[in-house]
Amino acid sequence: MDIQTLRDRHPDHWMRATAIRALTLDAVAAANSGHSGMPMGMADVATVLFANHLKFDASAPRWPDRDRFILSAGHGSMLLYSLMYLTGYADMTLEQIKNFRQWGAITAGHPEYGHVSAAETTTGPLGQGISNAVGFAMAEESLRARWGAKVQDHHTYVIAGDGCLMEGVSQEAIGLAGRLRLSRLIVLWDDNGITIDGKVSLSDVTDQGARFAASGWDVFSCDGHDPEDIDRAITAAKASSGPAMIACKTHIAIGHAAQDTSKGHGALTDKAQLQAAKDGYGWTGGAFEVPADVKSWWETVGAKGKSARAEWESRLAALSPAKQAEFARIFAGDAPNKLSATIRAVKKQAVDDLPKLATRAASEKVLSAVNPVMTETIGGSADLTGSNNTKTADMGVFSSEDRKGRYVYYGIREHGMAAAMNGLALHGGVRAYGGTFMCFTDYARPAMRLSALMGVPVVYVMTHDSIGLGEDGPTHQPVEHLAISRATPNTYVIRPADLVETAEAWEVALTTKTTPTVLALSRQNLPAVRKTHTNQNLVAKGAYVLAEATTKRQVILMATGSEVEIALKARDLLEAEGIGTRVVSMPCWELFAEQDDAYRRKVLPPGAVRIAIEAGTRFGWDTWLFGEGGKRDKADFVGMTGFGASAPAERLYAEFGITAEAAVAKAKALL
Amino acid sequence: MDIQTLRDRHPDHWMRATAIRALTLDAVAAANSGHSGMPMGMADVATVLFANHLKFDASAPRWPDRDRFILSAGHGSMLLYSLMYLTGYADMTLEQIKNFRQWGAITAGHPEYGHVSAAETTTGPLGQGISNAVGFAMAEESLRARWGAKVQDHHTYVIAGDGCLMEGVSQEAIGLAGRLRLSRLIVLWDDNGITIDGKVSLSDVTDQGARFAASGWDVFSCDGHDPEDIDRAITAAKASSGPAMIACKTHIAIGHAAQDTSKGHGALTDKAQLQAAKDGYGWTGGAFEVPADVKSWWETVGAKGKSARAEWESRLAALSPAKQAEFARIFAGDAPNKLSATIRAVKKQAVDDLPKLATRAASEKVLSAVNPVMTETIGGSADLTGSNNTKTADMGVFSSEDRKGRYVYYGIREHGMAAAMNGLALHGGVRAYGGTFMCFTDYARPAMRLSALMGVPVVYVMTHDSIGLGEDGPTHQPVEHLAISRATPNTYVIRPADLVETAEAWEVALTTKTTPTVLALSRQNLPAVRKTHTNQNLVAKGAYVLAEATTKRQVILMATGSEVEIALKARDLLEAEGIGTRVVSMPCWELFAEQDDAYRRKVLPPGAVRIAIEAGTRFGWDTWLFGEGGKRDKADFVGMTGFGASAPAERLYAEFGITAEAAVAKAKALL
Repeated sequence: MDIQTLRDRHPDHWMRATAIRALTLDAVAAANSGHSGMPMGMADVATVLFANHLKFDASAPRWPDRDRFILSAGHGSMLLYSLMYLTGYADMTLEQIKNFRQWGAITAGHPEYGHVSAAETTTGPLGQGISNAVGFAMAEESLRARWGAKVQDHHTYVIAGDGCLMEGVSQEAIGLAGRLRLSRLIVLWDDNGITIDGKVSLSDVTDQGARFAASGWDVFSCDGHDPEDIDRAITAAKASSGPAMIACKTHIAIGHAAQDTSKGHGALTDKAQLQAAKDGYGWTGGAFEVPADVKSWWETVGAKGKSARAEWESRLAALSPAKQAEFARIFAGDAPNKLSATIRAVKKQAVDDLPKLATRAASEKVLSAVNPVMTETIGGSADLTGSNNTKTADMGVFSSEDRKGRYVYYGIREHGMAAAMNGLALHGGVRAYGGTFMCFTDYARPAMRLSALMGVPVVYVMTHDSIGLGEDGPTHQPVEHLAISRATPNTYVIRPADLVETAEAWEVALTTKTTPTVLALSRQNLPAVRKTHTNQNLVAKGAYVLAEATTKRQVILMATGSEVEIALKARDLLEAEGIGTRVVSMPCWELFAEQDDAYRRKVLPPGAVRIAIEAGTRFGWDTWLFGEGGKRDKADFVGMTGFGASAPAERLYAEFGITAEAAVAKAKALL
Repeated sequence: MDIQTLRDRHPDHWMRATAIRALTLDAVAAANSGHSGMPMGMADVATVLFANHLKFDASAPRWPDRDRFILSAGHGSMLLYSLMYLTGYADMTLEQIKNFRQWGAITAGHPEYGHVSAAETTTGPLGQGISNAVGFAMAEESLRARWGAKVQDHHTYVIAGDGCLMEGVSQEAIGLAGRLRLSRLIVLWDDNGITIDGKVSLSDVTDQGARFAASGWDVFSCDGHDPEDIDRAITAAKASSGPAMIACKTHIAIGHAAQDTSKGHGALTDKAQLQAAKDGYGWTGGAFEVPADVKSWWETVGAKGKSARAEWESRLAALSPAKQAEFARIFAGDAPNKLSATIRAVKKQAVDDLPKLATRAASEKVLSAVNPVMTETIGGSADLTGSNNTKTADMGVFSSEDRKGRYVYYGIREHGMAAAMNGLALHGGVRAYGGTFMCFTDYARPAMRLSALMGVPVVYVMTHDSIGLGEDGPTHQPVEHLAISRATPNTYVIRPADLVETAEAWEVALTTKTTPTVLALSRQNLPAVRKTHTNQNLVAKGAYVLAEATTKRQVILMATGSEVEIALKARDLLEAEGIGTRVVSMPCWELFAEQDDAYRRKVLPPGAVRIAIEAGTRFGWDTWLFGEGGKRDKADFVGMTGFGASAPAERLYAEFGITAEAAVAKAKALL
């Protein structure tokens, strides 16, 4: 690629795009760390996108009807930071750019949601951004259908690299977007032919255009350094009736000695090479200097959306006050006022009926009550609708045929579902939940971690949460998955024991605004354990005394979910022998840990033998068994020590010794 | 589909294939659980494959040169079990079929490796089998290139369903196989148009043939109920020069009232409908009865490979005794005799040099010594070769151009890599390791769990194992991943502190035959902490006393990996104040837990204050802090409490308080 030709062909454009390149080179050099090549290679595409197409207002980064721009290739964070600085986002000062990747700066190595105002989502783990984008586009379609194009009417643009497209999750995203015909979704693929290990061809020969087309996408291509060709392609993509992918042929680290090499992917810090690149660009400014005319042009770009935003605000203001309040509420992520009363009604009915049912069925009962009063929910399942009990009456199915539907058939795509849920939640205006088997949290892990890191309040409805799944065997029986979810920071893992606890769990999950929730629900039927009504949400306490010792308390049995029933039976047996026994239901460790010391000590006082019962592995339980007033030689665990087996559930519980009798024997051995 | 037409067209074939259908219906009905539709729909394809193409000998299930048959759609386990029974595998008795999915039976809900002799791999979690198969085919190509076609010359066949193809990991497998041009890999896609939630079209419109073709596969199709058409397609696929996919158009639950419906996917147990299906088939036998002529024909199929196996055995016997012994060794998974001396030499050199280096670089040093003496290793990385330090000199690159190469550029495909590694190991004759960042164990989780469940001794080389990764930030910094890996049963998680420990860790990983290993390795340089040589492998003990208190022992500092250095510094500070302090290096909890009580008590005696130091979250540590002779009020933890941040590593350690000073302060507060 002859830089001089590019300069000559479009001199104004060249300098504007090169401002991104220069800032990137300077910031990476200052940090002595980062990824230079991608922002340099995609600078032309980003310039055309921001200047000619992206609907945004740098002075109002979170305006709800803005186009969403997602940098799926998050390592190219300097592309986003440069664009923000140039167009005048208030939070992106030059000082921040100079402190790229330093402690306390918002300019993290990869764009972090909540750190920089223009980061729609946290990216970096490859394939996530493009998969989030499917959720963003779904949210827009759903809101446009339900609120009208006057209020929601925008596009979702993604810049993705080869890494994003090689990750399996991208296929799930592509398949889902293709089926849903998300025509407002436009992926700009940075087709530079380079990965960290060398040429893409070292590890892949995929014809990406053909691959996208196979799933119903419209495919375009352009010379990623020719602004007119880029503009033509984006214009065509916007007009397409399906999701669109534009293959942007680019040169990574263009104009640098490392151009078109894997070295160009990383941190280009050699001073002489850096200067040579700038000289070749015709860039005369010093480090972090942008010529005034270039900066001022970019600020015009940053302000060009102001009128669109003002018009949108007038349209919103024309809605009824109730509608306006509702719009503000759903975008704030607040639960409706009615939610609390709805949950309470379910709880009251439950203590009247005392139903014996699986908590997955309990969850369906709760959702059946909640979904009609909380119409911003969008539910779904990764092809286990009937098993996860996630679909309630009158939701309709969200599809290319019905944009008002609120239930998503995600297909056999746990990872893509979780990533799309993040996107739905990040877009705002909707509240996402989705189901699969608890064991398949494994498949969704990378996206679930990002839910936690970003603090996105999605709800994972994970059913078949133990060996209680039965005959499908160890491949489908979680034993370590409660521990895995609990080990993840900022995640509520709630394993309710009956309908009342399930209702309380949903209330927690639907009212938190900064934490994802994993609901671990049983396949098998469970008896009601909460038999008297209280308005208080006891699950929100994390753990509580479910049944008190009738004589001097010698034993505390701690259990979650399906094993609370076993704990209660064990208590009956111990009490019958005159051994005073308390049962503590512990549906959510994280919420219990958030309580004050006095409450925790009240629930788990010192002095008694402690037995924890859970049909998972012990990993993590010692905190409650030995800690919090417990003693190592006065505590034991009833649960799994390894993987499960294929047999009917009752048999498995008996064979693996997760029984009331086993709990009693262990308790008595320690008395 | 008119059953009568099928019966009339190929009456003999029909009854033979229908034996699979009848056994499936009977077994699922007896278990009142299972998946009937897939074995019924794919019975014709499987019959043609086993009778006309698959090289196997039912009397020698593990013969190393057999074709591999992988039921990726593992829920259709009765297909495999029926074929095994019919063809005469000794372990698959009719009794086992009758006890399908029951406690103690080998006929688990999904085929389990190690349970039934013909299960090449454990399947059920969708997408795994097809991805394992890539590893199987790679192993065959590698061994054929290095040992000659006289010894290794076979195909890998896969039956996969829509679920397998929708899972993202399948795209990684398809891309990898396409690049590697694995022409011995043949995927038979059960194209029945049905998933659990309904028609495939509910959630997907992908043209699968076009998708495979986009990655360089040869694509065929057939009528999956016409034996001649099936035979034609398989013959063509075998002749193709790339990996081949055959779209087999089938009817799920063919001939049953539930045919072509999602109900047909599951357990068909209605007795009248079952009988009606059998009547329609012209099947007159009672439950579990197979007509003698049909059974006898199938037994001929099961025996037809005997001569091929005998010829193979003669060819093997013609090799030199040394070659034969080597072949037996690598298929037994035994380490070479030289390994132990090689590791010892690395350790000796290390205590001479006392190098300051990252454990990822230490790992490369070890591999550089090991790979030349253990030529069955096949290493690789998911596009982080230079960062994971997984490639050593003279390995060569395994590719379509060089089948003798031993290094694999897996591309940005952590999940596909892990699944392929499982396949490599399961095939036998090779030993697989592969690298990515520790944080991206998330992406590989489903396959890593299967490594553990199957007991496959692959080695995960997980570098950049903490906030020590630095500027890339929290998306790339593992904090919960040590806990996640440790929570998984049958997994060695080893976090070595220096070159000596890294060498010992590799020795453990390369000598175990039934457990996968996760090596957690630092990005940053670390000082040598093991300064005197011992032949003993101390890492194999899991934990050991690295530095003893010089006065009365008041404190025990426990640490792993990069934090052992911090523990040693803290010890210096404490000892300087006259506080006797022991440092225990704990590279592998699982191995420590395997030691006898006396050893564990010797390393962690009661009475001292305990401080654990690890740049991850506390989750799981309380077992060692409070348990094993520890006391709740005499223990504390120095580590992470949440996600990391983007900044240089040293700054992060200081800001998050993972320092010797912090450890000293916490110890003194408890004294």
